[in-house]
Amino acid sequence: RGTLGVGMVGYAFMGAAHSQGWRTAGHVFDLPVRPSLAAICGRDRAAVEAAAARHGWAAAETDWRALIARDDVQLIDICTPGDSHAEIAIAALEAGKHVLCEKPLANTVAEAEAMVRAAEAARSRGQVAIVGFNYRKVPAITYARQLIAEGRLGTLRHVRASYLQDWLVDPASPLTWRLKREHAGSGALGDLGAHIVDLAQYLAGELLTGVSAVAETFVRERPLLAGPAAGLSGSAGTAELGEVTVDDAALFTGRLASGALASFEATRMAAGRKNALRLEINGELGSLAFDLERLNELSFHDHTEPAATAGFRRILVTEPEHPYLEAWWPPGHGLGYEHTFVHQARDVVRTIAEGTEPRPSFADGLQVQRVLAAVEESAAKNSVHTPVPS
Amino acid sequence: RGTLGVGMVGYAFMGAAHSQGWRTAGHVFDLPVRPSLAAICGRDRAAVEAAAARHGWAAAETDWRALIARDDVQLIDICTPGDSHAEIAIAALEAGKHVLCEKPLANTVAEAEAMVRAAEAARSRGQVAIVGFNYRKVPAITYARQLIAEGRLGTLRHVRASYLQDWLVDPASPLTWRLKREHAGSGALGDLGAHIVDLAQYLAGELLTGVSAVAETFVRERPLLAGPAAGLSGSAGTAELGEVTVDDAALFTGRLASGALASFEATRMAAGRKNALRLEINGELGSLAFDLERLNELSFHDHTEPAATAGFRRILVTEPEHPYLEAWWPPGHGLGYEHTFVHQARDVVRTIAEGTEPRPSFADGLQVQRVLAAVEESAAKNSVHTPVPS
Amino acid sequence: RGTLGVGMVGYAFMGAAHSQGWRTAGHVFDLPVRPSLAAICGRDRAAVEAAAARHGWAAAETDWRALIARDDVQLIDICTPGDSHAEIAIAALEAGKHVLCEKPLANTVAEAEAMVRAAEAARSRGQVAIVGFNYRKVPAITYARQLIAEGRLGTLRHVRASYLQDWLVDPASPLTWRLKREHAGSGALGDLGAHIVDLAQYLAGELLTGVSAVAETFVRERPLLAGPAAGLSGSAGTAELGEVTVDDAALFTGRLASGALASFEATRMAAGRKNALRLEINGELGSLAFDLERLNELSFHDHTEPAATAGFRRILVTEPEHPYLEAWWPPGHGLGYEHTFVHQARDVVRTIAEGTEPRPSFADGLQVQRVLAAVEESAAKNSVHTPVPS
Amino acid sequence: RGTLGVGMVGYAFMGAAHSQGWRTAGHVFDLPVRPSLAAICGRDRAAVEAAAARHGWAAAETDWRALIARDDVQLIDICTPGDSHAEIAIAALEAGKHVLCEKPLANTVAEAEAMVRAAEAARSRGQVAIVGFNYRKVPAITYARQLIAEGRLGTLRHVRASYLQDWLVDPASPLTWRLKREHAGSGALGDLGAHIVDLAQYLAGELLTGVSAVAETFVRERPLLAGPAAGLSGSAGTAELGEVTVDDAALFTGRLASGALASFEATRMAAGRKNALRLEINGELGSLAFDLERLNELSFHDHTEPAATAGFRRILVTEPEHPYLEAWWPPGHGLGYEHTFVHQARDVVRTIAEGTEPRPSFADGLQVQRVLAAVEESAAKNSVHTPVPS
Repeated sequence: RGTLGVGMVGYAFMGAAHSQGWRTAGHVFDLPVRPSLAAICGRDRAAVEAAAARHGWAAAETDWRALIARDDVQLIDICTPGDSHAEIAIAALEAGKHVLCEKPLANTVAEAEAMVRAAEAARSRGQVAIVGFNYRKVPAITYARQLIAEGRLGTLRHVRASYLQDWLVDPASPLTWRLKREHAGSGALGDLGAHIVDLAQYLAGELLTGVSAVAETFVRERPLLAGPAAGLSGSAGTAELGEVTVDDAALFTGRLASGALASFEATRMAAGRKNALRLEINGELGSLAFDLERLNELSFHDHTEPAATAGFRRILVTEPEHPYLEAWWPPGHGLGYEHTFVHQARDVVRTIAEGTEPRPSFADGLQVQRVLAAVEESAAKNSVHTPVPS
Repeated sequence: RGTLGVGMVGYAFMGAAHSQGWRTAGHVFDLPVRPSLAAICGRDRAAVEAAAARHGWAAAETDWRALIARDDVQLIDICTPGDSHAEIAIAALEAGKHVLCEKPLANTVAEAEAMVRAAEAARSRGQVAIVGFNYRKVPAITYARQLIAEGRLGTLRHVRASYLQDWLVDPASPLTWRLKREHAGSGALGDLGAHIVDLAQYLAGELLTGVSAVAETFVRERPLLAGPAAGLSGSAGTAELGEVTVDDAALFTGRLASGALASFEATRMAAGRKNALRLEINGELGSLAFDLERLNELSFHDHTEPAATAGFRRILVTEPEHPYLEAWWPPGHGLGYEHTFVHQARDVVRTIAEGTEPRPSFADGLQVQRVLAAVEESAAKNSVHTPVPS
Repeated sequence: RGTLGVGMVGYAFMGAAHSQGWRTAGHVFDLPVRPSLAAICGRDRAAVEAAAARHGWAAAETDWRALIARDDVQLIDICTPGDSHAEIAIAALEAGKHVLCEKPLANTVAEAEAMVRAAEAARSRGQVAIVGFNYRKVPAITYARQLIAEGRLGTLRHVRASYLQDWLVDPASPLTWRLKREHAGSGALGDLGAHIVDLAQYLAGELLTGVSAVAETFVRERPLLAGPAAGLSGSAGTAELGEVTVDDAALFTGRLASGALASFEATRMAAGRKNALRLEINGELGSLAFDLERLNELSFHDHTEPAATAGFRRILVTEPEHPYLEAWWPPGHGLGYEHTFVHQARDVVRTIAEGTEPRPSFADGLQVQRVLAAVEESAAKNSVHTPVPS
Repeated sequence: RGTLGVGMVGYAFMGAAHSQGWRTAGHVFDLPVRPSLAAICGRDRAAVEAAAARHGWAAAETDWRALIARDDVQLIDICTPGDSHAEIAIAALEAGKHVLCEKPLANTVAEAEAMVRAAEAARSRGQVAIVGFNYRKVPAITYARQLIAEGRLGTLRHVRASYLQDWLVDPASPLTWRLKREHAGSGALGDLGAHIVDLAQYLAGELLTGVSAVAETFVRERPLLAGPAAGLSGSAGTAELGEVTVDDAALFTGRLASGALASFEATRMAAGRKNALRLEINGELGSLAFDLERLNELSFHDHTEPAATAGFRRILVTEPEHPYLEAWWPPGHGLGYEHTFVHQARDVVRTIAEGTEPRPSFADGLQVQRVLAAVEESAAKNSVHTPVPS
């Protein structure tokens, strides 16, 4: 069996998580080729070498162009802020590399469109371009999709999606790159909203046709960072304030192609909610509910049951029959957040080796970007219903 | 101690629930006057007499004007569909009676305004007019309001309210009065949405300034009723179909006066959700969450706690310190749905006897009506943000 | 339709709860005869008259013998501490009255045996004697019994029962009658343990053959009461201490006739658990779980389901198909603790009117008493397995 | 920084989990030395080489004596069934190697005593011997221990521990080594009971003084295995039956040194419970509860709170302040089962490098073994209370 040389750009939170995915996938799953952690790339020489040692990468680069140029690298894994996605991804694709790019695909629809063009051109050369909507790889989510695809919910009526965090509740929390539009594109919308838009459409198996939105920045100035950021909140802030240029929260409703109604809420200001990505889907024959804070569980109500014994059942998605579980532990021995990256690594490797359709594709990422753009447009226009271009 | 003679119009679901409230309140709470179940009113002689016997009313009337005219009746309790509220309430108030009126206050803003005028005139004569937002009387809700009023949540950021039921999921469910605009005013919006709009504003202690909405009727035709309705779903339907003229579901976002964002969803099409009135309120200092399907519990996150020991706590709202609980059972011995009507009866009696401000007032009911009207207007105008007149 | 004149002895916590049951049953259920609250009895004239007025009883007596002698009383409802149950019940039965007696049936097996003899003699005269294991009347429990009787769990393997409260955690909580052996018979064992022993056997449909037990009194002295008790904890205590002569907690294991293993725990020292009566039953084909703090819910795992969709479902036991629910509210509109007494009143009335077998009978109460005696004997004998006489 | 060469014996379920721990710990935590996966050992040459390739071990051995003899191995990690623990561990310690041994430490007290003697002798030479009670390494458990050690629960009253699984509910489940006394020592008792005995004592910070027990083998014959086992249930069974010689379930009560009462239940026959290791500890000042099926959560009731706001709080044990969490993901991004092995690897490496006291030690493992022996003795002697020798 051969190997797939991976070159990763960025080594903060996402870089650590992706590293764990690449390191682990080949030891857990039967893969046609094994990922090798060929090289990692960052601007600061000392820091990137430390990261390479820590995370198990064979080499370190300080220029992403050099990373792309390496012969031992066949896939570029982009874990940088959104403002650099397009440039790196397009260069990598043009250089003949496969690409895995963190979400949101880009900070603007125009960038995302350019990336899709590059991906399509590369696809004709056999290359793969995938966007990192890792929550599709939570077994409970993948399994929920199977149940819906099998028709267990019947005609869908409602999709309810919220992603609640609380790390910006404190007004003294510092002004990291995630709070600046030029780097992050948007705030809760792009960071959290992108996930739930993707999941809602993935699970429903259909796309949003339009949205109506409100967005808000509750805390408009925050302390400037004293030093380089660490973690989501970064290091302690200084006394000087800088402007927050992204949303703290975005709420929107929407319609799916089938006529089902959807609601979305993304916020970093929900005190006590740490990573509460919650989904509920109601159909004529049943309902599903999920909470990322209890990611090994899926709630399923089968409305075709007799009423007296019907009820939401808590399925522990840890049976060997469940997606990805054939390779893990006995029933009830749950997985964690990082397993989504192991599963993503598995799927990327298999897609490349087996020549199957890349999913979620750059086109999927662009479509999510268009939803986010429609959300911003609606929020700017008094919440008026705004179509999502297809 | 004297008594308060109650005359009730209507004896279906709400009539049964109110009867239980009037029968029980004086046996559980120390009341300055005791409610007496003087007379019940309905159009069908045999049916209303059977209802009187069943529910413990001393007399039966078939004309609500005769009910109002009775000397032994000091309070008219209106449990009819919304299209008759205004006429009965105004007549009762003009006849010098106190009034308790089921929600929604009326089917239109104009009717509600007329009712408020009648209530204000009557108030100057010492009469009380109250709208039956009974869920304010769930001890967990009343207590949540106390915590918010004490500042335990700090500045509010988010209110999240949904009321999910599923009794219309089946397209064969028949066309009862609740599905006809001329009787019910609206569908899920007025029936369920009115509750969560009231609760959101009651808990937040502030009003919605505007809304953006979508609404939908998923099943546009349903079987006509074979006979008189019983229960929510009514008796079995016939083969003939009639048009549903109200919404099955309404979703809306809104802004509270303080700038907090709110979201609402009312639906009767959420398979498996029976009476899932769910609220969550996030503030700078903490959060509260509630689910009517577990009405003895309140979730409270105190964000001023050290992070390591913080978490949503499940408060069993059954301590003697909790609202209404001084009169009930030892801790952990929970209450049910109907207790809201016992508490409502207590509060109405006390308000009358003690001369305190009636709450929730007809003006509160009118304001909710204005929110619902703004929701309908926004839904009709492409979801554009629509101010709520004050 | 006729009436059933009820005479109740005792008017503390249980008296209030029973009053609510007798007052309400006839207004909710279709009953062949209607209970009438004929007379209430207590030793203190002023107090019992106040109780009569509060709870809706037509007359008050200060001597239970006079109560029994009343012509308008056909049923004696005994809500006193356990040390007076036998004398009152036997006298009432001998006087030709029906009897409902609070649990535990008596403080000793000998008393309980005498009561059973009296009940059997009275049965031959058409009288009914029932013991107040009211938790059998929680709809979720009654429904659980139905599921087990239908074979949905298959051969039983485990019964797990605990009843956890916390009102004695504080060592300063005063020395009420419930803490004195001469009045209460035992402590957590008779008060809480009696319920879970009865429920375990009722649900399993089979009896315990033997037990092995430990018991403990953690706080051996408590403040003497300053005045008459109110509520479970009574009024504030004095500085003087008195000896606690009952158990604070009792744990025991046991075997059911079928060979299934059972475990029991009764305690008033579980901080934070208010009324946590929890049951779980595991069988070869499925499992059931219940928690009295969420009494409208029943958890059911159907082990015959495919593993991928199996899981404990949360059944809201509020459907019209569920026991007792035909008379209450729409689905999801939950019941409370006191409804068990309404259901008990319904069942007592029907048993009397329809001549069906009284359940739970005094013989059932005696058998529970024998289990409790075996528990005490085992606890006194180093936990050795102690058979329950049949 | 140097490395710690690990040699692992056994490569089934535990071998895979330990491999993941050794592979990952050095990439996540700052370790003084890095574990290197030097060699893995099993009897079948082809199988062990496949396992080495799969799990990332540099070499493979077929004789554990050869593994111990390797110069590149400083620690022997024993993942075999219990009947070989003593021989391998003692040989490894005598050869100067550190040892990590899976639980239960041995199949008999005598073997465990010999292992403790070997460990003590080795300790004087600077070697470390640790038993793999990995659940101590669940962050919620480690943190619960901290809260108890800080006195947040006050004097303990109750420890309630159960470990429920269901993989033997089906009588057709085959007769694997785990069901034979000569290999497994005991059944649910040693496999599951050992964990909860260790956790109860670890959390309470005190030891059991005696126990009273019942045990049962519900299914006494099961199909013989057709081929080598895979997973817990093994491959499909044959038509021929063999005798089950271990317990399916064991229940016991016990007393802790402080006088607190404890209850334990270990079973593989609880349909629907997959890995339900549940703990609750009640003290005079508070309570804690935990369920391994939701391992990122800890329930904490602070009984010193005002009653009106008190309640079990759901702490997401994912804050940087929580044990082990400094190295993982942002709050709310949960961990899984296998992380216990990463944490165990971290702690073993640090104990060796820093010369701290090994915990849990072989002496801890022996003491658990003595509890299990007392349980078996009590179960064989009519449940009589049986002291645990110290």
